[in-house]
Amino acid sequence: MFAVTILGNNSALPAYDRHPTAQIVTIGDQLLLIDCGEGTQMQLSRYKVRRGKLNHIFISHLHGDHYFGLIGLITSMGLLGREQPLYLYAPSGLDAIIELQLKVAATTLPFELVFHPLEKETVLVDTSKFSVSCFATQHRIPCWGFLVREKKSPRKIDTHKLKSFEIPTGFYPALKAGEDYTHPDGSIIYNHQVTVTNAAPRSYAYCADTIYDERLAEVTREVDLLYHESTYLKEMEDRAAERFHSTTVQAATIALKANARRLLLGHFSSKYEQLNDYLSEAITIFPNTQLAIEGVTFRILNAT
Amino acid sequence: MFAVTILGNNSALPAYDRHPTAQIVTIGDQLLLIDCGEGTQMQLSRYKVRRGKLNHIFISHLHGDHYFGLIGLITSMGLLGREQPLYLYAPSGLDAIIELQLKVAATTLPFELVFHPLEKETVLVDTSKFSVSCFATQHRIPCWGFLVREKKSPRKIDTHKLKSFEIPTGFYPALKAGEDYTHPDGSIIYNHQVTVTNAAPRSYAYCADTIYDERLAEVTREVDLLYHESTYLKEMEDRAAERFHSTTVQAATIALKANARRLLLGHFSSKYEQLNDYLSEAITIFPNTQLAIEGVTFRILNAT
Repeated sequence: MFAVTILGNNSALPAYDRHPTAQIVTIGDQLLLIDCGEGTQMQLSRYKVRRGKLNHIFISHLHGDHYFGLIGLITSMGLLGREQPLYLYAPSGLDAIIELQLKVAATTLPFELVFHPLEKETVLVDTSKFSVSCFATQHRIPCWGFLVREKKSPRKIDTHKLKSFEIPTGFYPALKAGEDYTHPDGSIIYNHQVTVTNAAPRSYAYCADTIYDERLAEVTREVDLLYHESTYLKEMEDRAAERFHSTTVQAATIALKANARRLLLGHFSSKYEQLNDYLSEAITIFPNTQLAIEGVTFRILNAT
Repeated sequence: MFAVTILGNNSALPAYDRHPTAQIVTIGDQLLLIDCGEGTQMQLSRYKVRRGKLNHIFISHLHGDHYFGLIGLITSMGLLGREQPLYLYAPSGLDAIIELQLKVAATTLPFELVFHPLEKETVLVDTSKFSVSCFATQHRIPCWGFLVREKKSPRKIDTHKLKSFEIPTGFYPALKAGEDYTHPDGSIIYNHQVTVTNAAPRSYAYCADTIYDERLAEVTREVDLLYHESTYLKEMEDRAAERFHSTTVQAATIALKANARRLLLGHFSSKYEQLNDYLSEAITIFPNTQLAIEGVTFRILNAT
């Protein structure tokens, strides 16, 4: 499973039961939380997300609509008796805010909160299953996007074919890596006899708040799903630039230039009650676009 | 109009669509916000409360379920272009948290936020229409309750009777204060001819988080509506004491000892999905009890 579930899709002001930014990326048995606007803990309950599997939280920048829900989530995790460490990746400054809020409440968390300040474009998480790296976006204050990449063995075992041969299970990792198997009697089972090419690893890019920036198309090149903010409709291009935000057309243009497979639009302005125009404007440039509707889970699919 | 509208009635963990503590007191043309748990700004929208009339915010203590929604509310007020000053009464420490959060966002509020630290039992707001004072409760960290008292002239003009006499409107305040009116020709209209006794001023007390403390019955003596926390049912009396909270029976006992007119129970534990037992337990001690249900407005009525 590799998917993103939208918990909040609105920009600064909550409106029309749309919430400030937050999303859950499910990858294998891990949940990653990207941004955590006010009310995120309630949204997690509403959409029945299991917090126990949440070990990594990424905060793009320190505008409140991207992190005001974090302290509530963290303290609730403490009240619920969490014990395993929680890893937090965010711009420097958030650590001091959290410390101060715990201090005035005379609260000690029952788990370790490991803070990693975002300072440069780098790999933040690197497991055998996936990696998460960050990249700078252009906003009024330092702001970071995140790229989640699945890892896969180059080869996948064909269990049906495997039945014809006696290969010890301990050799399976080597098979996945492309090696041939030599029986004790010297006979060789060639790798291609029992494996097939694996599907390409999938990727998801989260372009946080940003002005139109073509460099983002390079950074997110060929991603399977690109989330790009589109705070405004195209008519508000000047205002978008002034506030370091993007329009529908700009988001779609980045998706096109990146040769992304699919585009997800979010961070909608509370100026607009209806979202239809966001979609109709974007698809004129990039047809494979969807709106980040709250509660919806978007699977990240292979290119094919 | 003198009433309290419940925005959040749950204790620390949000659950069952119950929210952390927040309530709006409407008095005349003013709105007062007491406590501001996470999601309060959404609850204000949900229940169509007009923020423009909100000029005073009171925070009982610095446990997150009583103030995590404040920074979101304040910054949204800024985004919406508020210009008039906002008065904040809260334990010291909250000012530093807000300053830090505005600083990391490079945000300047377009209105003045006037911070008043709660340090002793005193009158906080004193207008011609009402006063708000604070009193200490007993909790794990410094915690304050609030007492809102209406002010009324001793006499009320009887507009029906007034028609028979020629009294300049400029003299009305003197009439309300009990004075007689002397016509230029020397004839006297006695006060009792055109006024009646006004109903007694009404009062509302908010007993924030507290262990059972009989002193609260003195402080809130004869209030028309007493809000008292009852985090737990009576079976959890030990746990309540351990955590400096109260039970249904304890809250009702305070209401009884205070000779309050009515009791409002809130701050329900997320241990309980159903709230029926809160009511049935409390009314055995104090029959005139209601549950603080979110979205409901409780009018503060005179004794009669």
